Amino acid sequence: MNAVINKDRLWESLMQLAEIGATPKGGVCRISLSDEDRRARDLFCTWARDAGCDIRIDAIGNIFARRPGNDAAAAPVVTGSHIDSQPLGGKFDGAYGVMAGLEVVRALNDAGIETAAPLEIVDWTDEEGARFAAGCIGSGVFSGHRDLNDALSLSDAEGTTVADALREIGYAGDIAPGSIPFKAYFEAHIEQGPVLEAAGLPIGTVIGAQGQRCFMVTLTGVDGHAGTLPMAKRQDTFVGTAKITVALSELAATYDPPAVITVGHVRVSPNSRNTIPGRTVFTIDSRHPDTDVLQRMEADITRICTDIAKADGLELQMDAVTRAEPVAFDPGCVDAVRTACRERQIRFMDIHSGAGHDACKIAAVAPTGMIFVPCEDGISHNELESARAEDLATGAQVLLDAMVKVAG
Amino acid sequence: MNAVINKDRLWESLMQLAEIGATPKGGVCRISLSDEDRRARDLFCTWARDAGCDIRIDAIGNIFARRPGNDAAAAPVVTGSHIDSQPLGGKFDGAYGVMAGLEVVRALNDAGIETAAPLEIVDWTDEEGARFAAGCIGSGVFSGHRDLNDALSLSDAEGTTVADALREIGYAGDIAPGSIPFKAYFEAHIEQGPVLEAAGLPIGTVIGAQGQRCFMVTLTGVDGHAGTLPMAKRQDTFVGTAKITVALSELAATYDPPAVITVGHVRVSPNSRNTIPGRTVFTIDSRHPDTDVLQRMEADITRICTDIAKADGLELQMDAVTRAEPVAFDPGCVDAVRTACRERQIRFMDIHSGAGHDACKIAAVAPTGMIFVPCEDGISHNELESARAEDLATGAQVLLDAMVKVAG
Repeated sequence: MNAVINKDRLWESLMQLAEIGATPKGGVCRISLSDEDRRARDLFCTWARDAGCDIRIDAIGNIFARRPGNDAAAAPVVTGSHIDSQPLGGKFDGAYGVMAGLEVVRALNDAGIETAAPLEIVDWTDEEGARFAAGCIGSGVFSGHRDLNDALSLSDAEGTTVADALREIGYAGDIAPGSIPFKAYFEAHIEQGPVLEAAGLPIGTVIGAQGQRCFMVTLTGVDGHAGTLPMAKRQDTFVGTAKITVALSELAATYDPPAVITVGHVRVSPNSRNTIPGRTVFTIDSRHPDTDVLQRMEADITRICTDIAKADGLELQMDAVTRAEPVAFDPGCVDAVRTACRERQIRFMDIHSGAGHDACKIAAVAPTGMIFVPCEDGISHNELESARAEDLATGAQVLLDAMVKVAG
Repeated sequence: MNAVINKDRLWESLMQLAEIGATPKGGVCRISLSDEDRRARDLFCTWARDAGCDIRIDAIGNIFARRPGNDAAAAPVVTGSHIDSQPLGGKFDGAYGVMAGLEVVRALNDAGIETAAPLEIVDWTDEEGARFAAGCIGSGVFSGHRDLNDALSLSDAEGTTVADALREIGYAGDIAPGSIPFKAYFEAHIEQGPVLEAAGLPIGTVIGAQGQRCFMVTLTGVDGHAGTLPMAKRQDTFVGTAKITVALSELAATYDPPAVITVGHVRVSPNSRNTIPGRTVFTIDSRHPDTDVLQRMEADITRICTDIAKADGLELQMDAVTRAEPVAFDPGCVDAVRTACRERQIRFMDIHSGAGHDACKIAAVAPTGMIFVPCEDGISHNELESARAEDLATGAQVLLDAMVKVAG
């Protein structure tokens, strides 16, 4: 088979897409269902139509772009990712998976190759979770992890719901999420970590993903005047938050290196320099590839929060907002990726994903695999996120070969 | 002298004023130069005019309401405070001093008493510092601690300057700040601390105020993905902020009990639950009544920030935004307050102020004294801030007697 990825075209598409929501330091701010997200969606739809695809939108705003096969009855072989970003995100996280899918279709068109099963490119709604306090909304609804109506009624900090936002940007579709059966799903993504780069390898065949426990914690104490209330009489929720954060950072180091714990979102109230904070809300994100270890970490985290809140006289509320179990990808899909590498003599290694991805949700309803490519210094969720055009093209080539192999 | 404070009228005025910007838990949100501040200023001006006062506004928005005396050449004896509040502040902080001044004028009117020197009630602009990152703006400009043009060009988080905000609410006056010489200045205020309540005394004669050092700290590290970047490779600014906050809390406890250190304002960036924070900005507020101790605390604070930033691989920027030296009030004014208490057989104690007040600025340009009354549980900068009508009336009576004694 001689369909070959066009490295420069793939790079050019990524750079054009990155102009939408571009930030000063070379990243993108393309918050889910914002006007920037709409413009990026519009551009993707235009490009996909130009490449001969039919576009359908489902009720949670997922976009499906289908390249017909010659077996009209066959379920599609699907690829994709997301084009929303973190508030200060990079050009490749998510966008690469969607543009790689587009490049697969364009390369097959160039080569005049028709597959038996249709191919389909998908842009999943709100993978990042930066706006509605829940990630993987589109793939989560599609795969039945999340109820459609619950997802539509999630609201952002301004009180705008997902349903409102979808209508505003014109992406409230009519087909039922999950109604399209997949023959298989592949997702290409930058690694977002330092492993492939350190190993000097262009491809990671992803065999599974870390599990995740994410908590929203609220500490309530008593506001007070910063000049007059003696230290011993304070119920300072930010000092409590600081103690918990330091303890969690030390806790993570007591587990195996893949264990990570992050306090990434913090809101201090009233947030005035001369008032002792009477209320602090923050998130705790913990991850590990082993369910048992993840459970032990959760118990430790709960104990740390409880003990510190009690010692400091603070009221503690702690809610689990995400409990994602570790995922094992489909052996057939993983093998299709490995075989594609071997046939082109591309060096690869098996790898676990540290991040959650849409593929982790889809794995529950379709045979799923992922392809990782290296990114510079392992940096992601950062404007400085960077990847090499050669590696991105190599990943897309492996994706093309694996998809065609499965589609026939 | 038989001018007697009307306890119920004073209370009623405080309660009416507290309706402007009222919060659900019984506090007020009357941010400086907001529409709520404007409405409160308008109400004060109406009441002061009804009590026979002439209103003048200076170029930084300070309001002066003068009750004429029979010696037209005499400098006024002045009292007042501020009617702006913290974002979640109480009904009495500041408002009490202005309403007590109004009640002094009303009680003298009722008794038909004319003083030799004029009496004047002042509402100082933006004491709280909750909006423009600097407190005591009005009294600071009046007393020459702060340049008028610098103050007018301070801007809030939305980029609105003090000058713009004054024009918007109609309080950009034309008289030059500081052009009114004061014979003396007295300020009545709730203690905002637990000392008077614990001692069971209705009046504190304030002999001076704690000095203050306030710093704005910025830690810069590297944003990163919360799932994929190993703990050992992180440059997490929120963990750095947490370590500094815990260390400062421990540091404060190593000094004498009046030493306080507070981290009250914190901004985490990008503030997303699955991104390691690459930048955190926070404030450190430290106070002590002794200049030497304050200097030692500053050196310790600087060392803690420097050491932790270095150990965690973070870039540190640290700016002193406030350096207020301890203040000693005028012995003559302090004695006038003590004498007023003795003559009415009111029990009192000498006290240091833990908070900064407009009086601390005015002390540099006029003989100054302060009168503290207890507040419930020492709670202030809090919606639950509370004080007893009896104590507030006692404080206003002492204020009246002291002012009349000095005014002649």
